[in-house]
Amino acid sequence: MIFSSALIENAVNEFARLPGIGKKTALRLVLHLLKQDPAQVKLFGDVVTRMRDQIKFCKVCHNVSDQEVCSICSSLSRNKALVCVVENIRDVMAIENTQQFNGVYHVLGGIISPIDGVGPDQLNIHTLVERVQQTGIEEIIMALSPTIEGDTTIYYLSKKLKDFPVKITTIARGIAFGGELEYADEMTLARSISNRLPLESYVQK
Amino acid sequence: MIFSSALIENAVNEFARLPGIGKKTALRLVLHLLKQDPAQVKLFGDVVTRMRDQIKFCKVCHNVSDQEVCSICSSLSRNKALVCVVENIRDVMAIENTQQFNGVYHVLGGIISPIDGVGPDQLNIHTLVERVQQTGIEEIIMALSPTIEGDTTIYYLSKKLKDFPVKITTIARGIAFGGELEYADEMTLARSISNRLPLESYVQK
Repeated sequence: MIFSSALIENAVNEFARLPGIGKKTALRLVLHLLKQDPAQVKLFGDVVTRMRDQIKFCKVCHNVSDQEVCSICSSLSRNKALVCVVENIRDVMAIENTQQFNGVYHVLGGIISPIDGVGPDQLNIHTLVERVQQTGIEEIIMALSPTIEGDTTIYYLSKKLKDFPVKITTIARGIAFGGELEYADEMTLARSISNRLPLESYVQK
Repeated sequence: MIFSSALIENAVNEFARLPGIGKKTALRLVLHLLKQDPAQVKLFGDVVTRMRDQIKFCKVCHNVSDQEVCSICSSLSRNKALVCVVENIRDVMAIENTQQFNGVYHVLGGIISPIDGVGPDQLNIHTLVERVQQTGIEEIIMALSPTIEGDTTIYYLSKKLKDFPVKITTIARGIAFGGELEYADEMTLARSISNRLPLESYVQK
């Protein structure tokens, strides 16, 4: 691509570094910003820079936060004895969006994946064990992806926590609502049959 | 969407104002930036802000530029007697990318479209007439979209310029390279037949 302005070229290159944004889309975004008020564009730049500079990670659950302790961990109405273990921040948001979970979280910051060079030491596992040791956690829900890595992580965590009086559960796996039975993979289908539920619990939903 | 951080929420909202970027994509971009080095994110913000603040529009052709006069208009190797009239900056880039055009440009900043409230006075038409009056322009190529608005603009410009000794041409319209004849619209097909070319000019290409 040939640019008549180095300013534009730099801005396009910066946008094109973002995931899923190619040069053409980057150019479209830059030309859009070019038509906006300079103050509005400055606000955009400032908000993004400030977000990265000032963001904190909750020292209890490692969720993103504006304070030392995130709004979920510091909320009085959340059940601190129920901890949901997730891979990343996006999982926290997905579960929060359901507005059905009243416990707190623990963000691992990844899952065990030897292929990607991620071992237990790179994850926030040490702090989870500490939380179980020091606070009265009753139940830990493993809400990790149903992959080999997710299962490995669940297995590792359950070994680490086996000496503590804490109940460990995993989220239910099965056919998604609106999912077609015939397109479900065999593993999911097999598990959803072996973990079948009494009709009452279905109707309740 | 529920955010545990106002910093993140603001950044997502700013990204989601960009065209073609919804809340989910915005969140993905923000979470990506969150994993980057703060200095890198600051660079991103600065480059975007600076682009909008410092960008100039060439006082000759209205193309974007880092100087008062853009690099194309100030180049000694470009033919100043050949002016290509385009709608916007992106068209300039598209033509420059072909590396086949050696003239200069005139960016109208839009096309005449009464429905969108764009009349001749909102466009850079006055300065085009001045350029024709004051400099030795020999040919003007109308490279506008083949729409009613484009044709209206070409018609308006040709009336404005009819008293000057300047040749006015339009870019060729026809079946695109690689385009299938049967899927071409009637108008294009009809024009490409009536504007048929001798075989020599085809082989030359």
